[in-house]
Amino acid sequence: MRILVLGGDGYLGWPSALHLSASGHEVAVADNFVRRTYDNEMGVSSLVPIEPLHVRVRAWQELTGKRIDIFAGDLFDADFTHDMLRKWRPDAIVHFAEQRSAPYSMIDQKHAVYTQVNNVVGNLNLLYAIADIDPTIHLVKLGTMGEYGTPNIDIEEGWLEIEHNGRKDRLPLPKVPGSFYHLSKVHDSHNIHFACRMWGLRSTDLNQGVVYGLGTDETDLHDDLHTSFHYDAVFGTVLNRYVVQAVIGEPLTVYGAGGQKRSFLNIRDTLQCVRLAVENPADQGEFRVFNQFTEVFTVLELAEIVAAAAGKVGIDAQIAHIDNPRIELEEHYYNPRNDALLALGLEPRLLSEELVEDMLTRVQRHAASIDRETLLPTVRWRAGMPTPAR
Amino acid sequence: MRILVLGGDGYLGWPSALHLSASGHEVAVADNFVRRTYDNEMGVSSLVPIEPLHVRVRAWQELTGKRIDIFAGDLFDADFTHDMLRKWRPDAIVHFAEQRSAPYSMIDQKHAVYTQVNNVVGNLNLLYAIADIDPTIHLVKLGTMGEYGTPNIDIEEGWLEIEHNGRKDRLPLPKVPGSFYHLSKVHDSHNIHFACRMWGLRSTDLNQGVVYGLGTDETDLHDDLHTSFHYDAVFGTVLNRYVVQAVIGEPLTVYGAGGQKRSFLNIRDTLQCVRLAVENPADQGEFRVFNQFTEVFTVLELAEIVAAAAGKVGIDAQIAHIDNPRIELEEHYYNPRNDALLALGLEPRLLSEELVEDMLTRVQRHAASIDRETLLPTVRWRAGMPTPAR
Repeated sequence: MRILVLGGDGYLGWPSALHLSASGHEVAVADNFVRRTYDNEMGVSSLVPIEPLHVRVRAWQELTGKRIDIFAGDLFDADFTHDMLRKWRPDAIVHFAEQRSAPYSMIDQKHAVYTQVNNVVGNLNLLYAIADIDPTIHLVKLGTMGEYGTPNIDIEEGWLEIEHNGRKDRLPLPKVPGSFYHLSKVHDSHNIHFACRMWGLRSTDLNQGVVYGLGTDETDLHDDLHTSFHYDAVFGTVLNRYVVQAVIGEPLTVYGAGGQKRSFLNIRDTLQCVRLAVENPADQGEFRVFNQFTEVFTVLELAEIVAAAAGKVGIDAQIAHIDNPRIELEEHYYNPRNDALLALGLEPRLLSEELVEDMLTRVQRHAASIDRETLLPTVRWRAGMPTPAR
Repeated sequence: MRILVLGGDGYLGWPSALHLSASGHEVAVADNFVRRTYDNEMGVSSLVPIEPLHVRVRAWQELTGKRIDIFAGDLFDADFTHDMLRKWRPDAIVHFAEQRSAPYSMIDQKHAVYTQVNNVVGNLNLLYAIADIDPTIHLVKLGTMGEYGTPNIDIEEGWLEIEHNGRKDRLPLPKVPGSFYHLSKVHDSHNIHFACRMWGLRSTDLNQGVVYGLGTDETDLHDDLHTSFHYDAVFGTVLNRYVVQAVIGEPLTVYGAGGQKRSFLNIRDTLQCVRLAVENPADQGEFRVFNQFTEVFTVLELAEIVAAAAGKVGIDAQIAHIDNPRIELEEHYYNPRNDALLALGLEPRLLSEELVEDMLTRVQRHAASIDRETLLPTVRWRAGMPTPAR
């Protein structure tokens, strides 16, 4: 198949592109490189050094003979988006190209507005381009498990059979998201559902859990193929951050009581899930939602797993509870379903102490460049308020 | 109370401001006057001539001695929004200031993006300004009954007690809206709910039905106080348009089979509802949803009511079914609840033949300026697709 990966310079977009290319698909990537700009803005950087996109693409071609086309541009630019689809004519589009940090969206008014406008408009432009150029293109859109929040009922995959006053309907599962970023994905989901209903487009919304890991079969082939790895409090996901804290002998910082349950998956499983969604497309007109994760942990349990694994490699890791910068329940029911991807053949690589040991070893190679100043949260959900754009 | 009416130059914003002023409140209005720009863009105009906002405000002061302050500016401008709240310090804000036409939002990519960005960003800026300056300000936000779509279950007021697999939660009622405009209101509702949960703001989301009527007790006091009345296929609501068609002897054009059920209310009841919501504020931290309508009709039933009333005043009105420009069910279950506003004291002025006769008489005064070219739909939900922004 011809597959266009949007956000192909990112943590997950780049290894997804390689994995799809390695699996025999024709792949192109698009990016506006703004992720690298966020790093400069926030004063953070990837722990694992990454090459410019064109260097990575060239390295892939030299190693495998497989070509990946690059489109440098911004989905916010309707002309760019339109021209790219007209030129490259994909069968499927994998859309990672959004601002994806909850804390970044909560910095202040300007960052909240930027996140929603950037994500919603890019996605709208894409829907119009698909409808105009080829409505059979399958849109595989990255959403997040955070769209649901933590309801007191089971989290089904996007849809719910509701019975009320003796009548029934199958309706979208209500969403109670926890940041302006998560809200942007809820807005996207509503817009995509509409385009499927009105224009007969077809889409799979991948509500992804929190991803951990550094490296995949393909990115491990050569140093020039590495993907980024962030551990800072704005862009680093929780397990990745714990591993870095363990390596430099800092306590693993658990936000609040730590009873917050979240869905997790290995970066390698992200690639499997994306490939399975692409290779088993939604029906024309269908808006399909997959919950994309393999396991559920509390953030405290995760810290305990990292501390135990650290002990095995001679690190005495402590756990510290710090004031929760977010506003979220720290004790709650959480039971999400993930049957759809398992039914398509997903073989989960579950979190194990061995896997964490491997992460610790990989992070140790870069220990000298860890910036401990960036590990503690500075963005507060409540303090996000008082900063107007001036 | 001190009440700031956003969108105070509009069809409903202006008479709401007058009604609140007449009821003894201190009122200010804000507007960016873009509604008058849409008229120029689309080549349409209000049937009832309206004065510039400052002339209308001066006329109100001369007649009643009551002052209404004007803020000329755009909610999209965070500084303007922030400064206005800091300067005027309202107790409540009534937010009408959004692009409110479904067909306008479906013209093409550019109008869809404009509608969502304009509405979502203006509302986000408002939330940040309230949180920063005075979180006790009660935000009374105009939503629409169209946020719900036409589910096969009863439409409760924003929230639903859901029981699923033996567990229960009270969650937002799922939304299946029918245009990019309706979607923008769904996005707003999610963002406001979030601000109430995170920052303890308080808000009433008024999910309003389709409004009909020309004139209220206050706007009828003097010709300089009139509010706008649109009948064109983009900005005119269905009953208003039927009345105009009857007056000029054109058939009343019913979209498709006409079995589409919608919620309706008299413009005078909009004013009552807004006043009741303002005078009975939500609790701090509460996100309250009221369904704001008084009656349900199919669009065909409405045409029959207008035709019957027209007969009484000597007009032989025909009904014509035309191709539905929208994509919507033309036969469906529809049972929305509206208990909350009735409990607060809303006294509905139900649609009657006499009321339609009064509308016919009022429209007849302006019959000479009716532009019949603007009555038939040109924007098609399906054809909205193929126009990229170039």
